[in-house]
Amino acid sequence: MIKIVNATERERRAFIEELKLRVGRTDPETEQKVARIIEDVRTGGDEAVKAYSEKFDGWTPDRLELSREEMEELSARCSGEFLEALKRAAANIYDFHSRQKQQSRIDPQPNGVIMGQRVRGLHRVGVYVPGGTAGYPSSVLMNVIPAKVAGVGEIVMATPPGRAGHPDPNIIAAALVAGVDRVFLMGGAQAVAALAYGTESIPKVDKIVGPGNIFVATAKKQLYGVVDIDMIAGPSEILIIADSSADPEYLAADLMSQAEHDPMASAILITDDRKLAESTVSALYRQLETLARRDIIERALDGYGAVIVCENMKEAVEFANQLAPEHLEVCCRDPFEYLGRLDNAGSVFLGNYSPEPLGDYFAGANHVLPTGGTARFFSPLSVDDFIKKSSFIYYTKDALMGAAGDIIELAETEELTAHANSIRVRLEE
Amino acid sequence: MIKIVNATERERRAFIEELKLRVGRTDPETEQKVARIIEDVRTGGDEAVKAYSEKFDGWTPDRLELSREEMEELSARCSGEFLEALKRAAANIYDFHSRQKQQSRIDPQPNGVIMGQRVRGLHRVGVYVPGGTAGYPSSVLMNVIPAKVAGVGEIVMATPPGRAGHPDPNIIAAALVAGVDRVFLMGGAQAVAALAYGTESIPKVDKIVGPGNIFVATAKKQLYGVVDIDMIAGPSEILIIADSSADPEYLAADLMSQAEHDPMASAILITDDRKLAESTVSALYRQLETLARRDIIERALDGYGAVIVCENMKEAVEFANQLAPEHLEVCCRDPFEYLGRLDNAGSVFLGNYSPEPLGDYFAGANHVLPTGGTARFFSPLSVDDFIKKSSFIYYTKDALMGAAGDIIELAETEELTAHANSIRVRLEE
Repeated sequence: MIKIVNATERERRAFIEELKLRVGRTDPETEQKVARIIEDVRTGGDEAVKAYSEKFDGWTPDRLELSREEMEELSARCSGEFLEALKRAAANIYDFHSRQKQQSRIDPQPNGVIMGQRVRGLHRVGVYVPGGTAGYPSSVLMNVIPAKVAGVGEIVMATPPGRAGHPDPNIIAAALVAGVDRVFLMGGAQAVAALAYGTESIPKVDKIVGPGNIFVATAKKQLYGVVDIDMIAGPSEILIIADSSADPEYLAADLMSQAEHDPMASAILITDDRKLAESTVSALYRQLETLARRDIIERALDGYGAVIVCENMKEAVEFANQLAPEHLEVCCRDPFEYLGRLDNAGSVFLGNYSPEPLGDYFAGANHVLPTGGTARFFSPLSVDDFIKKSSFIYYTKDALMGAAGDIIELAETEELTAHANSIRVRLEE
Repeated sequence: MIKIVNATERERRAFIEELKLRVGRTDPETEQKVARIIEDVRTGGDEAVKAYSEKFDGWTPDRLELSREEMEELSARCSGEFLEALKRAAANIYDFHSRQKQQSRIDPQPNGVIMGQRVRGLHRVGVYVPGGTAGYPSSVLMNVIPAKVAGVGEIVMATPPGRAGHPDPNIIAAALVAGVDRVFLMGGAQAVAALAYGTESIPKVDKIVGPGNIFVATAKKQLYGVVDIDMIAGPSEILIIADSSADPEYLAADLMSQAEHDPMASAILITDDRKLAESTVSALYRQLETLARRDIIERALDGYGAVIVCENMKEAVEFANQLAPEHLEVCCRDPFEYLGRLDNAGSVFLGNYSPEPLGDYFAGANHVLPTGGTARFFSPLSVDDFIKKSSFIYYTKDALMGAAGDIIELAETEELTAHANSIRVRLEE
């Protein structure tokens, strides 16, 4: 189980490097399989998608698209409490993301020159939603709502139909609440390929987002450039920095909330208070008894968990910046004082009443976050991921005459004489 | 040479598909070579970089870094006119990009909840600048200035030393004007790997941008995830939509200014005015005689150029939206009336006095633009490419108690019981 370590700085760095090895490369056999599926769908369209659905999902689809009536019928099967909670969460997510929206701008200058930048939502986005016994409606909200705020023209969802021949009703309820326009019953690499190229029944999209298995992730990477894609998510991770003001029961619960995702999830606590570390580990053992996903939790904590005791909170902050965790909880007195010193984290949870699941489900910030140390340079999923920008330039004749000398000088320095010629022909009047 | 075509809509679409085939895949042999270079640099550091410099560039470096004194000495060799033009261009680029800067925000709510998003520049960025007899100082400005505006902590440049043992003075002048902090003399895949991993002399960066040959591009793709990278640029392209108000001499010059980049560059004119089309082609032949890069221009126009006559400007706009060109000139009366109908273009040039080279060098908008039809979903290089965002969440105890029911409901629906447990332990007081 999880160990308490008095790691030196060097040992902490080595641990961080070890964690990075969790992200593996796709093996060549999978790459080839996926390349084959993509090519078959590109040329074979609907028929290829159906053939692969039969082969991989054991489902013989008579139709690829869920009708609106079917969507509403499925959604109506959900419990009232769930639907109400879903709507309140969606409202918070919508509110947070609406503040991210950028405007098109124009900069007219006194000499008549007009520069500007247009910002618009993408035409069409595909959201992949994995199947499985417990679907993730929160994932639907988090992937779809920023696209909605961005003004994307059409949002289509791809999700495997499941043994029952239809997706989990909770997924469909979330799709309706978030504003998905169409739902296609398909999964795997064939779904990604169908969205990227379009088929007889499936519209071509400009971007594909959403989590998925190795086949889905590999297909997205191979199709990058044909479409845009989101980040490929690695295993989940949480770092908690805590001082003596923290409650060990809370810390234990929060570490395990992350560990339950995946046997490769990483859950780390760093504190300057040895007694707190010990109490947290005791609490871990005690609470673990009560949890359904005990096996996954234990494997994750064994492999990638740690409770680190350091000298002072300055060292804890340094460790946080080196680790660049996906989720960072600050269970310290005066948590806001840490904010400006935390350089690298996907999402920061301040204080003892902001547990990570609050962010996963409800508070409104996105839960699609950079993993594996990429919080150094990647960002949470946001409205910016669903827009495209376009600059525009308008020069009057006089303004161009004024700039002509400079442009010709620069073009000729680069030996691009036809560029200079474009300016010269306009001079010769 | 370039043909005038009365293409049907179907033929126009087929032509667009043909253009997309210009973007090839990297051959496996190159992929393997690059993977080897990357691994050698990762483990061998400076020594590996020097060995590859010797092997590929025929240069035996005694040092990898250009000193500040050397940079200023090289810059002083440039002509005064060039330096003045460079500074004026840089000022315009800085002005345009400064308007892209996003602020960190905070949303405090009456119930004590505080949500927010921090926006900060990346820690360190590497800008690759290819060598060659005519360096591209404009490329230095366009890649570095947005990073400067973004507040990137340190901007380092990698550029091959060249036969003279030092880079082109114009490149170094541009580096100083734009605000590069350090310059390293190295090129190819080994430079990219050195920046991505860091070596004894070379600092590790978070993002690598800038154009380069197939080895540089392949290295960037392979290292994506270890660092962030920019788009891989494809061959250049321009589309001009023109009506009878356009001047055929201008159109001819502008088509050729793009064609001179590369034998695979695409230059297309679409107009509803047959006479204009014919006059443009005549002007092309005439002006071609005078241009130094005549050979490249002819090859590009032969292979990927076209002058298309359509029925009306509505068809021209439709073609523009299907093509999604990198550069789009609107040489029409009332050019602004087109702006809202043009859905997909990297940069739009309005009117008869806004030739594309104006944007390449001077007006201020970025010249690093999406190619190969990716303007459907990619954007020009901007300040947004050099920042990272981080959300933060603060809930009071009361606020969490208020949300507890909803979070537990959603977590339990997803069967993530340890997530629900994080909330429950805080209820049991």
